[in-house]
Amino acid sequence: MTSQMTPNADAVMQNLLLRQEIEDFNAAYSAALDEGRLKDWPDFFTEDALYVVTARENFDRNLPVGLIYCEGRGMLADRAFAVEKTAMYAPRYLRHFIANTRVVKLAEDGSIQARANYIILQTLFDRPETTLHQVGVYLDTFKRENGALLLAERKCVYDNLLVANSLVYPI
Amino acid sequence: MTSQMTPNADAVMQNLLLRQEIEDFNAAYSAALDEGRLKDWPDFFTEDALYVVTARENFDRNLPVGLIYCEGRGMLADRAFAVEKTAMYAPRYLRHFIANTRVVKLAEDGSIQARANYIILQTLFDRPETTLHQVGVYLDTFKRENGALLLAERKCVYDNLLVANSLVYPI
Amino acid sequence: MTSQMTPNADAVMQNLLLRQEIEDFNAAYSAALDEGRLKDWPDFFTEDALYVVTARENFDRNLPVGLIYCEGRGMLADRAFAVEKTAMYAPRYLRHFIANTRVVKLAEDGSIQARANYIILQTLFDRPETTLHQVGVYLDTFKRENGALLLAERKCVYDNLLVANSLVYPI
Repeated sequence: MTSQMTPNADAVMQNLLLRQEIEDFNAAYSAALDEGRLKDWPDFFTEDALYVVTARENFDRNLPVGLIYCEGRGMLADRAFAVEKTAMYAPRYLRHFIANTRVVKLAEDGSIQARANYIILQTLFDRPETTLHQVGVYLDTFKRENGALLLAERKCVYDNLLVANSLVYPI
Repeated sequence: MTSQMTPNADAVMQNLLLRQEIEDFNAAYSAALDEGRLKDWPDFFTEDALYVVTARENFDRNLPVGLIYCEGRGMLADRAFAVEKTAMYAPRYLRHFIANTRVVKLAEDGSIQARANYIILQTLFDRPETTLHQVGVYLDTFKRENGALLLAERKCVYDNLLVANSLVYPI
Repeated sequence: MTSQMTPNADAVMQNLLLRQEIEDFNAAYSAALDEGRLKDWPDFFTEDALYVVTARENFDRNLPVGLIYCEGRGMLADRAFAVEKTAMYAPRYLRHFIANTRVVKLAEDGSIQARANYIILQTLFDRPETTLHQVGVYLDTFKRENGALLLAERKCVYDNLLVANSLVYPI
């Protein structure tokens, strides 16, 4: 073992496997949304999951969440259905980029707190330019069910001061 | 082993090593293009590789590919040479960001299907702003030759509705 | 072991653990800056570290560095203090995205050379849009002290032709 190697390889390896799983989870989550498979979206969450999309300025001041608030997989399914069916939602391409993934805490009850930064790029079919749709951080709590990770909580805290759409696509 | 650990650590580890290799491959691929080493670019492909750059709207409708179509390392080398030598190609900096890398399938013949999202940022020397040049997904098939991964197929499917250049730099 | 597996799994695993550590380091580094914890920033460096922010066009021509030059943790602390206290620094959100992380070289003296591409997105409080603040590459040398990685050298080489601020926030 050279001096470049980490002295606590076991702990690094455990953290590594867990981060790998979370990155795989987030890549699959992103693909579902980027490919427009909205009906698959609620399956990434636990039955009683909390899903929130809120502005950083509100989050930092403990102000009530604004853009999206869903309690439970049923509300997530309702939202997915609404977005998919509404005529108000202009056709577009979305593309997620998730980076800086970190395991923050392993709690006593087996849940896992993690964070990752996200960029969502949007291409509206009637505009020539691809733009930065939303930029922020996922504040997540994962739980393991039947061996697989699920989101018990995902708070999407975005930096953007303006977010254009009244009916927001899941982040 | 705590409840946070994955129950199928061996499978996760195999997938992890493979994803690591692909991420290293893509980082080296990106660096070659970002640093303008176009002559190194064909070496990332197998002798009979397929390389395609096409719009998402065409790809989704099975329409013929548009922007770039190369069959074999020879055509890739021709293209690299053409881009490097042409006076029509304005000087610029490019910078790749590859994220959400996923191993999708391990085929019976030993080939590996993988995906990753990409952003290419462009800085033209006569424009003040760095811009989103192209955003999309790599749909890849890797093969192993002499122990190392090579691209047998790379389809670059981009979201952008407009791509400005007639002679396109490799993606 | 199938044909998809790497034949030199041990070397890949060593490289993997090291890249994992560097990615964790960079995620923590990014979080400190994104969350405005500027006083924590010097702690990511060795006592005599070199920290430089310079334009790619100057770097490629071996011209003197421009934007930021700090030798030693003391100068880093001075800079962090100056940025935090100055009234000239408009309030903003920053968000780092680090990708394409690569271990480039393990030197005989135990130091580690690595690279990663970065995007920094900026949201100014008096502008509606989130923009690409700076795009570039970290050219890093890490050293291990008491088991943990620290930056002995970080050169931030940015592609942007124009960088707006006279007093630049750490990159």
